[in-house]
Amino acid sequence: MSKTRQGIDELALNLVALARAANINLSTAESCTGGGISTAITAVPGSSHMFKGGIIAYANSVKTAQLHVPAGLIEKHGAVSEPVALAMAEGANTALKTDMAISVTGIAGPDGGTEDKPVGTVWIAIAQKGRSTAAHLFEFTNTGRKNIRLCATNEALRMLCEAIENQKCTGL
Amino acid sequence: MSKTRQGIDELALNLVALARAANINLSTAESCTGGGISTAITAVPGSSHMFKGGIIAYANSVKTAQLHVPAGLIEKHGAVSEPVALAMAEGANTALKTDMAISVTGIAGPDGGTEDKPVGTVWIAIAQKGRSTAAHLFEFTNTGRKNIRLCATNEALRMLCEAIENQKCTGL
Repeated sequence: MSKTRQGIDELALNLVALARAANINLSTAESCTGGGISTAITAVPGSSHMFKGGIIAYANSVKTAQLHVPAGLIEKHGAVSEPVALAMAEGANTALKTDMAISVTGIAGPDGGTEDKPVGTVWIAIAQKGRSTAAHLFEFTNTGRKNIRLCATNEALRMLCEAIENQKCTGL
Repeated sequence: MSKTRQGIDELALNLVALARAANINLSTAESCTGGGISTAITAVPGSSHMFKGGIIAYANSVKTAQLHVPAGLIEKHGAVSEPVALAMAEGANTALKTDMAISVTGIAGPDGGTEDKPVGTVWIAIAQKGRSTAAHLFEFTNTGRKNIRLCATNEALRMLCEAIENQKCTGL
């Protein structure tokens, strides 16, 4: 990468400025990051103009009740999967009536990893009103729970900045 | 105080151990802390056994829609008030079907302060299934947005530990 890697604080500052300039409001649906993305965004003064709130869906019952993720989807694909990440982001966007929502579901460890989905497996999805929802798979190296959560938070903020910048280019 | 003041990481570790030992599960309803309490709890391995999730209710529309805080209560008393803190905690406990929920609503600044409610004014409430909900007012010195949020997170975690320890003494 030619660009210097940005830290969480800097990304959150950029995100708040980008969203405010584009008049876009956001929500979050966090599982393994447990509120880290929302905490980073709300650390920025003035974030209340673009951040409406979020659902921390740690238990599957919260994913189904608050984010309206179909229980069958979790049973079939597991909570850490592309379909569940997509449904979580769409659920947050609908429930919190926002323009854009991000979801994160992953295995931060130290337990919970399997051969198919080792610790460090994280799906991140972005739902945008009037556009299709897209998810990305990250397979972070298992450098510990703290690092995996920070990597996921960093990627989520970066993806949100990118999505807003893309909207500016293509128009909504 | 004779006891050494505990940091957020240590309090979160204690809280997860106390809740697991008492078989109590928790949820959160965060406004000014923006997810900081949930992030601290979920940083602890094994927290998924006692933490179901939370609602980050930054916008008032999220307080009313997701936490079922009556809009009239916010209009009458303001979002940063004892009745709204109580309703947020009860709303989280009911919506997320937990044994205990904590809510935080306050003015982290730099804007939003008034003569009556200066920056640093924070209400924290704890709802416990089968018990009355109680709220406490904190008037933190305005040492900046970051510090106020950290102080509120610290007090919230401390109050949760205390509430679980009190349940052990008095029985539910």
